[in-house]
Amino acid sequence: MRTRTYLDWNATAPLCGAAREAMIAAMDVVGNPSSVHGEGRAAKGLMERARAQVAEAFGAHGADIVFTSGATEAAALALSGKGMHCAAVEHEAVSSWCDADLAVDRSGRVTVAEPAKSALQIANSETGIVQTLPEGLAVCDATQGFGKIPLAFNWMGCDMALLSAHKLGGPKGVGALVLKQGLDVEATIKGGGQEMGRRSGTENLIGIAGFGAAAERAAKQLAEGVWEEVAEKRDYLEALLADGMQAPIFVGKNESRLPNTMSLITPGWKGETQVMQMDLAGFAVSAGSACSSGKVRASKVLTAMGSSDEDAACALRVSIGPEVTKEELERFATAWLSAFGRWRKRAA
Amino acid sequence: MRTRTYLDWNATAPLCGAAREAMIAAMDVVGNPSSVHGEGRAAKGLMERARAQVAEAFGAHGADIVFTSGATEAAALALSGKGMHCAAVEHEAVSSWCDADLAVDRSGRVTVAEPAKSALQIANSETGIVQTLPEGLAVCDATQGFGKIPLAFNWMGCDMALLSAHKLGGPKGVGALVLKQGLDVEATIKGGGQEMGRRSGTENLIGIAGFGAAAERAAKQLAEGVWEEVAEKRDYLEALLADGMQAPIFVGKNESRLPNTMSLITPGWKGETQVMQMDLAGFAVSAGSACSSGKVRASKVLTAMGSSDEDAACALRVSIGPEVTKEELERFATAWLSAFGRWRKRAA
Repeated sequence: MRTRTYLDWNATAPLCGAAREAMIAAMDVVGNPSSVHGEGRAAKGLMERARAQVAEAFGAHGADIVFTSGATEAAALALSGKGMHCAAVEHEAVSSWCDADLAVDRSGRVTVAEPAKSALQIANSETGIVQTLPEGLAVCDATQGFGKIPLAFNWMGCDMALLSAHKLGGPKGVGALVLKQGLDVEATIKGGGQEMGRRSGTENLIGIAGFGAAAERAAKQLAEGVWEEVAEKRDYLEALLADGMQAPIFVGKNESRLPNTMSLITPGWKGETQVMQMDLAGFAVSAGSACSSGKVRASKVLTAMGSSDEDAACALRVSIGPEVTKEELERFATAWLSAFGRWRKRAA
Repeated sequence: MRTRTYLDWNATAPLCGAAREAMIAAMDVVGNPSSVHGEGRAAKGLMERARAQVAEAFGAHGADIVFTSGATEAAALALSGKGMHCAAVEHEAVSSWCDADLAVDRSGRVTVAEPAKSALQIANSETGIVQTLPEGLAVCDATQGFGKIPLAFNWMGCDMALLSAHKLGGPKGVGALVLKQGLDVEATIKGGGQEMGRRSGTENLIGIAGFGAAAERAAKQLAEGVWEEVAEKRDYLEALLADGMQAPIFVGKNESRLPNTMSLITPGWKGETQVMQMDLAGFAVSAGSACSSGKVRASKVLTAMGSSDEDAACALRVSIGPEVTKEELERFATAWLSAFGRWRKRAA
């Protein structure tokens, strides 16, 4: 098989070595964390170690970390039945439970009218644009920011935060709801009373062990400045592409944004077509639009920022991570510019 | 560390080799199953393979298998807001959503008045007692039966079934809701629209791969008669214990029950005390009572069958699997009978 290059880290990041090792080690831990015998206590110990690792990496000492099957379940736990507000740039896992009536300006900034009744993301998955959180925010979706930019829950001024393991090198299907001390939520999954009654069901021990290890490693990499190098690589890619185009439209380029995300609109050239052409050329990238059904849709993130439906369907997202090399980005730029040139000719 | 013997398979079974291998292989699959590129399609392919393995093992060809974070989440998806009926012998993941008003007789049999409005377990986790399902049952909790006794969803005559991976050698934190073709449920976790809109959130790919492999292996072992050997070993243990006691009370001994489960009531000797003494002696077993809080409680399963609160707090559950040997059971019987003798002396 030919070499492939994975440039879709915001969709899911490759499992990191630390998570892999922790998960394989956890496979030998036999017990159920709810059992009182030695095997149960060993399982419980492993889980509590992971909880401490996540709390430490997220600056959430003393806060309650409720492990869930992902940020989507954490969103349901935090938001269902609350009638909260959010903006149209939020992920559907959040907006499904909210009135999406908060204003978004052309630079992607959300204005939060009532923080105590609102949910707001730290960073957008499509554009990478980073929000400034208002004091007293009810729910912060930290999914895309956790592990990529420095964050500390205890200083963020919000009541709850949503986390996902697989965006920072942990396994898919694990996440957490972080709760300020003293707060509580009503369980949406009831039964055995695990997670202090907030989320029943035998815990995903292997996945949770991977989450803990990945969070610890992510915090270490952040402290070492690894993501500043990622930003340099992303900027390098943007420069390479800009050299081969006239007036490229990089969304959020002048805003505070994630170090790893590039969003490029090429009016008239459908994002899905770009994704498919790049896939054939050996590169995994994404259209701006979230698209679990396979249908081409305009990105509601970009339309919320003022793009037309036509332009919003013509976005390309490249999202990278520490292991992506400049050489891979050069090969991608060459492949994309070549396809772009062919499209321009056909379109002319 | 001294050798330990794990005899608590109904709480959670050790991860089987097939699941372990499938999970480690899945760690190299980078993509998000919702992504359209090659990496996403590979992830999707792995997930669909696991879905086919579970359907095949559960005799559910053509039925919809909705992967969840476990049987507890599957129960919430099947039962929340439906006002169904169940008996007090059901797991709390089921009874939390139901009126627990169905009659249970002294042999543990449940009488279902309105099958279309009721949930019933295939087998009880504490006693192993197997139910005969009425035609037209709404929800069957197959958690403890799947993998231990032959079951085929397509001939069970129920609309939905709940499955768990970790009871049959798969990982903890994975399960499924099985739906008869043409049926639907309203999602309790909303967002990206995965699992045909029934359960949003990026899928636990590694865990699901492990579930598929474990289900396939469990079906093969069942066909090979492995669980008949398990039943012989369980009967052997019961005979060893009975030899050292007067009038032992084995719950469900004359009923149809799981091949691996022994439930023994010793009036006056608390189950939790037995569990702790056996733990110190190197054996992981369980009290009859489910007890996630660590508190000693009478088993509601046993009180529903007519036991007094006092007797129901004095149950011991031993649940085994194919890898448990007769020699291990002999050592357990010796240790337990020795502790029993000491208790008898003190109690006298």
